[in-house]
Amino acid sequence: MTDLAATVMERCETLGRVSEEPDLLVRPFASEAMRRTNDLVADWMRAAGMIVLSDEIGNLIGRYEGRDEGSGTLVFGSHLDTVRDAGKYDGPLGVMVALACVERLHQRNERLPFALEVVGFADEEGLRFGTTFLGSSIFAGTFDPRLLNLEDAGGVKLSDAVRSFGGDPDAVEKDGLVGSDLFYCCEVHIEQGPVLERLGLPVSVVSAIAGQSRIGVGFVGEAGHAGTVPMEGRRDALCAAAEFVLAVEETARSQPGMVATVGYITTHPGAGNVIPGETSLSLDIRHGDDPVRQRSVQSLRERAVGIAAARGEEYRWQVRQESHAVPTDPELTALLARAVEELGYRVEHLPSGAGHDAAQMAEITPIAMLFVRCKGGVSHNPAESVEQEDVAVAIEVTSRFLALAAEERR
Amino acid sequence: MTDLAATVMERCETLGRVSEEPDLLVRPFASEAMRRTNDLVADWMRAAGMIVLSDEIGNLIGRYEGRDEGSGTLVFGSHLDTVRDAGKYDGPLGVMVALACVERLHQRNERLPFALEVVGFADEEGLRFGTTFLGSSIFAGTFDPRLLNLEDAGGVKLSDAVRSFGGDPDAVEKDGLVGSDLFYCCEVHIEQGPVLERLGLPVSVVSAIAGQSRIGVGFVGEAGHAGTVPMEGRRDALCAAAEFVLAVEETARSQPGMVATVGYITTHPGAGNVIPGETSLSLDIRHGDDPVRQRSVQSLRERAVGIAAARGEEYRWQVRQESHAVPTDPELTALLARAVEELGYRVEHLPSGAGHDAAQMAEITPIAMLFVRCKGGVSHNPAESVEQEDVAVAIEVTSRFLALAAEERR
Repeated sequence: MTDLAATVMERCETLGRVSEEPDLLVRPFASEAMRRTNDLVADWMRAAGMIVLSDEIGNLIGRYEGRDEGSGTLVFGSHLDTVRDAGKYDGPLGVMVALACVERLHQRNERLPFALEVVGFADEEGLRFGTTFLGSSIFAGTFDPRLLNLEDAGGVKLSDAVRSFGGDPDAVEKDGLVGSDLFYCCEVHIEQGPVLERLGLPVSVVSAIAGQSRIGVGFVGEAGHAGTVPMEGRRDALCAAAEFVLAVEETARSQPGMVATVGYITTHPGAGNVIPGETSLSLDIRHGDDPVRQRSVQSLRERAVGIAAARGEEYRWQVRQESHAVPTDPELTALLARAVEELGYRVEHLPSGAGHDAAQMAEITPIAMLFVRCKGGVSHNPAESVEQEDVAVAIEVTSRFLALAAEERR
Repeated sequence: MTDLAATVMERCETLGRVSEEPDLLVRPFASEAMRRTNDLVADWMRAAGMIVLSDEIGNLIGRYEGRDEGSGTLVFGSHLDTVRDAGKYDGPLGVMVALACVERLHQRNERLPFALEVVGFADEEGLRFGTTFLGSSIFAGTFDPRLLNLEDAGGVKLSDAVRSFGGDPDAVEKDGLVGSDLFYCCEVHIEQGPVLERLGLPVSVVSAIAGQSRIGVGFVGEAGHAGTVPMEGRRDALCAAAEFVLAVEETARSQPGMVATVGYITTHPGAGNVIPGETSLSLDIRHGDDPVRQRSVQSLRERAVGIAAARGEEYRWQVRQESHAVPTDPELTALLARAVEELGYRVEHLPSGAGHDAAQMAEITPIAMLFVRCKGGVSHNPAESVEQEDVAVAIEVTSRFLALAAEERR
C-alpha cells in the first residue's frame, strides 16, 4: 500500500498548491483554481480507468464500472473546495484515498460487482456564497433553487457562477440522484479533532454527524462611568456574560459527547473606563443526539434568564441556525468497522462535531464515514497534517470495506 | 440665590451650544469652539468685576482683587473643554458656580481680604492630544514639556496648536504657580455618579480623588474547531477570561469604596465556531487609598496566574497607567463641610472615582472639592442633567465657604 499512500500524499501536496492566491491555499467554488483542480483530478481518474463526468454545479465524478450491470453504484465522496488559508487534507484526502482504491483495482484488473463512483464535491465549505454543502446538496437533490440568487462579495450571482463554470443553473435540480441505483455512500475525511491522536489510532468509524445550534446571546445592563458608579448599583452586562460563558462550559462538560463554545464576545460601549452596558456573544452547541442538545439549549436559555434577572438586566436569545444530527447507517458502519477490525485496529465510534457532505447524502442513501488521524487535531489551517502511514491504513480499510460490500452484495 | 442659579443654568445651556459639530457637543483643546467659549466666559467675568487673563496654554483666568494687598489668592477652577458628545455640566458648571459667587460679591460691592481667581482650564479631558489635565498641569507646574511634540489625529503638534491659539509653547512652563501667593484651591464639579441622588443630598464634600490602575490583561490558550475538540482537551481563553471578570467583580464588591471594571474584551480568532485561543481585556481599578488598591491589584494578578495555571494557559499582565490617590486637604475640606452644615445639609464625604483638575492643583496648594448631584449619575453623555435648586445650594455653600475662609484668614 505504501506506493498508493505516497501517491495520495503527493497528490494532496500538488492540490495544496492550486490556489487563487500565491501565498495561501484558498479554492472557492467555481474559481479558476477549482477548474485546474478538477482538470488534475480528472486526469488521475482517467489514469485509474474511470470515465469522468461533471454535473451542472461542477461536482467531478469518476465512474469505475462494475462487473455486473444493474448491481448499483457505491459512491465515495468528499470535497475539493477549501476555506481561506486552508490545510491540504480537509476534503481532498477523502477523494484521493477513494481514488487510490480504484487505482488498486485497476492495477489488478479487478472489478467489483457494482459500479464505484468517486465524487469530488464542488463546494462544501461555502466560502464564496455562504452555501455549505452546495455540491452534495445538488447531488442528493436537497438543494433549494432560491439560493441561485445569492451573490458573492463581488456581486456575482450563484447562477452566473454556475454558468461561467460551464453548468446550466436551470438544470442543477435535475442532478439529484434520488431514484438512481446508488445504494451506499462512504466518506473518508480527516478527523479535524485530537481524539484519534490521543487514542493512538490511525482511523475510526463515525457514529453520527452532530446536530448543531448556533445562537446569538446578549445581555443588556446599564453603561456607566467606571470610576463613579459604586459596585452595588451596577448592572454590568459583561459580568452577566461571564457567568453565562462559564455556564456554557459547565453544561457541556457535564454532558458526555457534547461540545459548546462561546467563540465571539463584544461589549458596548467597549471602553476600558466605561461599565459595559451591553454584551453580545455567540453560542455554538453540538451533540450527536438531538433531544440531548435541545434540552441543554433550553437549560442554557433558562440560565441566561436567571443570570439577567438576578442582575436586573435584560437578555437576548436569537437562534441563528439549527441542524439536526445525522447518524451514520448502523449496518454500513458495522461493515466499515469490520474492515478496521480485520486489519488489526481497535474500533472506535467517534461522533463528528463538524458537518460533512455525507450528511447530505444520508438523505438518499445509507452512509458511513471513516476518520483519519490528523496532527494535533489542527484543521482549517495551513498546519493541517496527516501521516503517510495513516493514509496507508485508510486505503487498506476502504479497500477491505469494498471487498466486504462486494461479498455482501453477491 | 435663585437669580444667580438661573444665570448659571442659562450659561451652561449657552456654552452647551458652543461646539465644533452642529449636532453634538464637542469642544476640544485649542479649537475654534474653545476660543468662542473663552470669549463668552471672559465677558461674563468682566461683567462680574474681574480682570481677565489668559496663560500660554489657553487657561482663562478671571481675577477679583482682594481688599488687602498681599493676602494671597484663592483659586476656584474647573475645565471648559469637553469629551465628544458631552453633557453641558461636566467642567463648565464649576466655573459658572465660582463666577456666580464673584458676581454676588460684585453686586454687593463686597471684597474678600484675599484675591479670588476663577480659572477655566483649557484641557482636562484630553480629547485632542490624549493629555488629560493639560490645563491644570501647566497651571500647577507639573507639565512635562516633551508632550509638546504629541500630534493630534490630523497630525497637528501640540506646540503648533498652542501657537495657533495665541500662546507661546516655549513659555508654557513658566506659567506654573509654584511660589505664587496661591493659598487654597477649590473645585466644584458634578458628581458623575449616582450616590448623592441615592442619599437625597444636593451636594457633598470630596474625601479623595481615587488612585487608579489601568491594566491590560490577556489569556492565551489554544484555538480549535468548536465542533471537533472535546471539552476535556480545551484550553479556552474566553472561559479563563470569564473567571477573571467575575473575580474582578467579587474583589471590588468585598472592598468598601473600591470600583473595578472590565470594560473591554475581545477574543481571537473571534469566530462563533472557533474556540477562543486568546482574549484581551481591560482592567480599571480605583480606590481612595493606594495600598488598598495595590493589594487588590496584586491579588487579582495572583488570580489571573491561578486561573491560567489551572487551565494550562498563559496569562499577560501589562500595567498601562497608574495614578496615586489624591486626598483633599483635611482642614480646607473641614471648612467646606462647615459651610455645607451651616446651610442645613448633612455632610457626606464622598471619594471621587473620576480624576479632576484639583488633583493637579494639590501638587502646589491645599485643595477641597464640592460635588453637585447629577441626575442618575449620568455623565459624558448629552443626558447629563443637574437641577437648578442644587446649583443654588452649591452657590450658597461656596459663598459661605469663602466667607469662612475670609474669617479664618483675617
